[in-house]
Amino acid sequence: MRGLRRTPVEVTLVDRQNYHLFQPLAYQVATGSLSASEIASPLRAVFKRQKNVRVLLAEAIGVDLAAHTLEVGSLPNGDEGSTLAYDTLVVATGSRYSYFGHEDWRTHAPELKSLPGALDIRARILRAFEAAEVETDPAKRAAWLTFVVVGAGPTGVETAGQIAELARDALPRDFRSADTQQTRVLLVETADRVLGAFTPKLSSKAFHSLQTLGVTPLVGHTVVDITAASVSVQNAAGAVEEIPARTAIWAAGVTTASFARVLADAAGVETDRAGRVTVQPDLRLAGHPDVFALGDMVRVGEKVLPGVAPVAMQQGRYVARVIAGNEARPFNYKDKGNLATIGRSRAVAEVGPIRASGFPAWVLWLGVHLVYLIGFQNRLLVLLRWLFSFATHGRGARLITPR
Amino acid sequence: MRGLRRTPVEVTLVDRQNYHLFQPLAYQVATGSLSASEIASPLRAVFKRQKNVRVLLAEAIGVDLAAHTLEVGSLPNGDEGSTLAYDTLVVATGSRYSYFGHEDWRTHAPELKSLPGALDIRARILRAFEAAEVETDPAKRAAWLTFVVVGAGPTGVETAGQIAELARDALPRDFRSADTQQTRVLLVETADRVLGAFTPKLSSKAFHSLQTLGVTPLVGHTVVDITAASVSVQNAAGAVEEIPARTAIWAAGVTTASFARVLADAAGVETDRAGRVTVQPDLRLAGHPDVFALGDMVRVGEKVLPGVAPVAMQQGRYVARVIAGNEARPFNYKDKGNLATIGRSRAVAEVGPIRASGFPAWVLWLGVHLVYLIGFQNRLLVLLRWLFSFATHGRGARLITPR
Repeated sequence: MRGLRRTPVEVTLVDRQNYHLFQPLAYQVATGSLSASEIASPLRAVFKRQKNVRVLLAEAIGVDLAAHTLEVGSLPNGDEGSTLAYDTLVVATGSRYSYFGHEDWRTHAPELKSLPGALDIRARILRAFEAAEVETDPAKRAAWLTFVVVGAGPTGVETAGQIAELARDALPRDFRSADTQQTRVLLVETADRVLGAFTPKLSSKAFHSLQTLGVTPLVGHTVVDITAASVSVQNAAGAVEEIPARTAIWAAGVTTASFARVLADAAGVETDRAGRVTVQPDLRLAGHPDVFALGDMVRVGEKVLPGVAPVAMQQGRYVARVIAGNEARPFNYKDKGNLATIGRSRAVAEVGPIRASGFPAWVLWLGVHLVYLIGFQNRLLVLLRWLFSFATHGRGARLITPR
Repeated sequence: MRGLRRTPVEVTLVDRQNYHLFQPLAYQVATGSLSASEIASPLRAVFKRQKNVRVLLAEAIGVDLAAHTLEVGSLPNGDEGSTLAYDTLVVATGSRYSYFGHEDWRTHAPELKSLPGALDIRARILRAFEAAEVETDPAKRAAWLTFVVVGAGPTGVETAGQIAELARDALPRDFRSADTQQTRVLLVETADRVLGAFTPKLSSKAFHSLQTLGVTPLVGHTVVDITAASVSVQNAAGAVEEIPARTAIWAAGVTTASFARVLADAAGVETDRAGRVTVQPDLRLAGHPDVFALGDMVRVGEKVLPGVAPVAMQQGRYVARVIAGNEARPFNYKDKGNLATIGRSRAVAEVGPIRASGFPAWVLWLGVHLVYLIGFQNRLLVLLRWLFSFATHGRGARLITPR
């Protein structure tokens, strides 16, 4: 979109939310480190100066590829949805976590992907400590102090690490009856190691960092049931254990947002198991040269790229160049590396030939995330919050806001 | 509460919310200048170091003055409510705005007093501009761009001024179809002047500042009806006008929160029309020397003090001294003055013999509000937001978050 600022085109950005969420930091909202507006920028503010962009606050619900029109749901003024004509359509509706067919688990284990999800999780985590404070039955109290994070990708690892730090460093002096140091944080992962996208050596370092922080990584374990009061996991040998836990957070699996299905059906193109729409090497839909799709909702031919921000950003810039007529080659992903933080001063990084862990990786993580956060104001506010947290072990944004 | 930190007592703070809201800045959340967590401090963080304070996240719902017990509603762990024994009870449950018997207006004109209220109003204001952007009918678009603020006390004046600035300075370049400069902000006040607590001369200055900002103050007008699409006002001569407006904000009247009624009934003491509980000169309930009540939920004998933060703060410190045995005189309010801001560089101030307006009053307003905002971190974050807003005319926290 911003890549089109000097191209003589008119762009309409359709989004059902009025902000761009910097998703890699959503877990910090969920754990009370950051405030929602510090990681979300109003779309209109982002495109204030780009006069060829209009923003429409609406949800895309249908597409007619033959008529070259996009159908959107109800408009902000309450009017029924309308139809937008396009010359070129670019679809980037992203993905959600997948509950592996157990949609009923969503109620007990919200996903950490959207801002409402992060605020919901924040309220649940904080309420669990409040509940532990008033609970007198030791077994019940232990269940309130048990947190299960499902999925040990970067989001799961970061969330588990932050909850452990919250319980160990930020909260102990806040409570009088509950001993938050008794908190158990379990990180459940089906694969045999955490951070599967990293080298086994860095995975192993992350595993030990998690343990040092007080997180119990349950690798080789699969979630088989989630209720309001427990999470049941099955180990590789098939044994099932029911863990009493009042708080579960979901960060596993991946499936595309619903519009991917709409698009694939309209175009008659294939999707994979995760619902990814197949696109051509230039990110166009086969048979529809005026339609591009990108990000973690697509696979390029048979190739699935990592579902991370750098892929989507490079693809966005690529499509902007194609539209402007400045690009004839197929899309080629330049892997800049992988970063994940585990907690205060702990991170792992793979950048080109460099493998780093501990403090240097953590500083790199901080820098990269600050650079990519949109808006100078947000960068400064987040930096300030981080400095405070680092200095005081505190968490400034610990509000239970109403659902 | 903090006045009791060196007194050998055990304090239980019962609150249904886990944060202390700095209410004087709630309107800045409603208008997108500040983020919720910047004006709300987690109670547990506030009392972290004060070991004689326990925080209980629950709602007070009943009291048995003979048995010296307080009844609270459901607990965070889901248990049914319980009963707390007390030696001394201090009640400070505050007030709400009153809809003058028209509770149905609340749906269309939310009150600006709580954090959920402020977030709701923020979403409504931002959605109204989004609606104006897609609306093609000129009359309907005008109704989306018309905002009615009811009540010209400090909150009403500040809110009206901020909406006008938002429309005039922050938003014009954000929209492509709607001309936000066409926004009308009406400030309806039954009395014959704005900011009735100030001297007539400062009222008049505030009136003209509002006009300069683009606000239309309708003094001597009373709201007689509010619907989803209009606000009807009646002037002193009795003529009724129906103003097409899609957004209304309520900041008028005053009534105590429901626990004041519970307490007055239990004690058999009188309340006034606004529901204020009558207390004795030492803020005790007549016949119940172990029960204090304070803040804008009480009147001291027949005397109603202004419903502002300094009164409640002085009363809180007074009660702490009485409990500690360090105070024998009746409560005496020291009026430190009145402050209200109208917009960027515009405010009015009455401090002792000083009457100020314009830039000096505004700087004073900024300083006082920063000093009283709880928490060093929040002060810096708010200062930073304000510097940005001042420099760029922008508003950083413009998220429409889900209800």
